[in-house]
Amino acid sequence: MDKSFFKQHISQQFNAELEDIIKQVMAMGGLVEQQLADAVHAMVEGDAELAEKVMTSDYEVNAKEVEIDEECTHILARRQPTASDLRLVIAVIKTITDLERMGDEAERVGRMGLHLLDEDRNSAPMSDIASMGEHVREMTRGALDAFARMDVEQAVRVAQLDIQIDSLYETVTHKLMRQMTAAPDSVPRLMDIVWATRSLERIGDRARNICEYVVYFVKGKDVRHTSYEQMAEQATGDRH
Amino acid sequence: MDKSFFKQHISQQFNAELEDIIKQVMAMGGLVEQQLADAVHAMVEGDAELAEKVMTSDYEVNAKEVEIDEECTHILARRQPTASDLRLVIAVIKTITDLERMGDEAERVGRMGLHLLDEDRNSAPMSDIASMGEHVREMTRGALDAFARMDVEQAVRVAQLDIQIDSLYETVTHKLMRQMTAAPDSVPRLMDIVWATRSLERIGDRARNICEYVVYFVKGKDVRHTSYEQMAEQATGDRH
Repeated sequence: MDKSFFKQHISQQFNAELEDIIKQVMAMGGLVEQQLADAVHAMVEGDAELAEKVMTSDYEVNAKEVEIDEECTHILARRQPTASDLRLVIAVIKTITDLERMGDEAERVGRMGLHLLDEDRNSAPMSDIASMGEHVREMTRGALDAFARMDVEQAVRVAQLDIQIDSLYETVTHKLMRQMTAAPDSVPRLMDIVWATRSLERIGDRARNICEYVVYFVKGKDVRHTSYEQMAEQATGDRH
Repeated sequence: MDKSFFKQHISQQFNAELEDIIKQVMAMGGLVEQQLADAVHAMVEGDAELAEKVMTSDYEVNAKEVEIDEECTHILARRQPTASDLRLVIAVIKTITDLERMGDEAERVGRMGLHLLDEDRNSAPMSDIASMGEHVREMTRGALDAFARMDVEQAVRVAQLDIQIDSLYETVTHKLMRQMTAAPDSVPRLMDIVWATRSLERIGDRARNICEYVVYFVKGKDVRHTSYEQMAEQATGDRH
């Protein structure tokens, strides 16, 4: 984030609190990003140990959410922020909710690493899933980066990556359904992969939410429930 | 909600604002509840007209979310609430996020009413799905009622209804998977029903979230990421 944002406060202490909260969101985001990378790797490679690690780290993510949430409430009560300070705190409260749910979805993906048999892994479109995982990870990283720097242009660009993820998701689920039809006995096991793919797709949706909060903070405009075009338009306009 | 909560404010205007915001949340909740009832009916009975109605009403739910969110931001900026007033506003901000997502899930269920063929409807475990829909609706109604009256005991009771919903969800998905295995050609169409069932299960999760915000508001305790037992324990303890 532009350093001048923090310099505008008379209270050094308030500056420090806001900077600290952004740092904490980044740390939480870093955990989720790692969880996501590990989860996809655990599933694609069948690494049970890594899958266990993903599951354990979810507690850490949950604890971070509660901690940051409390810190935000304290800031609201003590500092009674207005204007962009208030929008920042609200954007943080919303972002950590999405981050926590992204962690839950990553955990679901990781759990597949424990259940999946080698034969399922060989028959499923694992390279497509790995590629989808890579896109989702890139989008998550981009959304967090846009948040850290409160960069509206990047937020708009990153939000649009979701289109590609949705299209990969369609490809993978269609392949999986064709396989189920061809090998009905594999239905229950392939369904697990379907769930994991769905979780990846949902992580993309939530990364888009974070991009929307960046626009909300910087422009003061709520771009939820709008198209990509409308979002870009709002993001380039003046702050109202 | 206990009327005395509103009477504690010196400013009549502030009272009116808080009362108004609760009324608006209830109106939004009413919309979602109706959307959910219509969506399940549309899917189970194959009522395409009702399904269209569900889809149109989602715009209304989205608009309500943005409207209430703005109202909350204004209250935070203008009134700079502390203690229970602040917790109320935060609980509202979180509740409407969940309500909006519940509306999205209901829309997904409703969409099935448009796609589903009669033969699918006849082969799928529709009575189980209808029963699951009824439970989810009851839970949604209960969560909203607990929120309206900020009734902690009811919130704890309603949150536990999710156990039954999860169990019905397991039953329905297992039946659907067995059917897919037996009739592989039906896989793509039955998958649509699997998604709808998953959406219903998710609505239950989000109704539980709303119950958790009630405990947060009344007791000042964050009971997310805790077990049902811990939630009940926290809810009966003193406010800290």
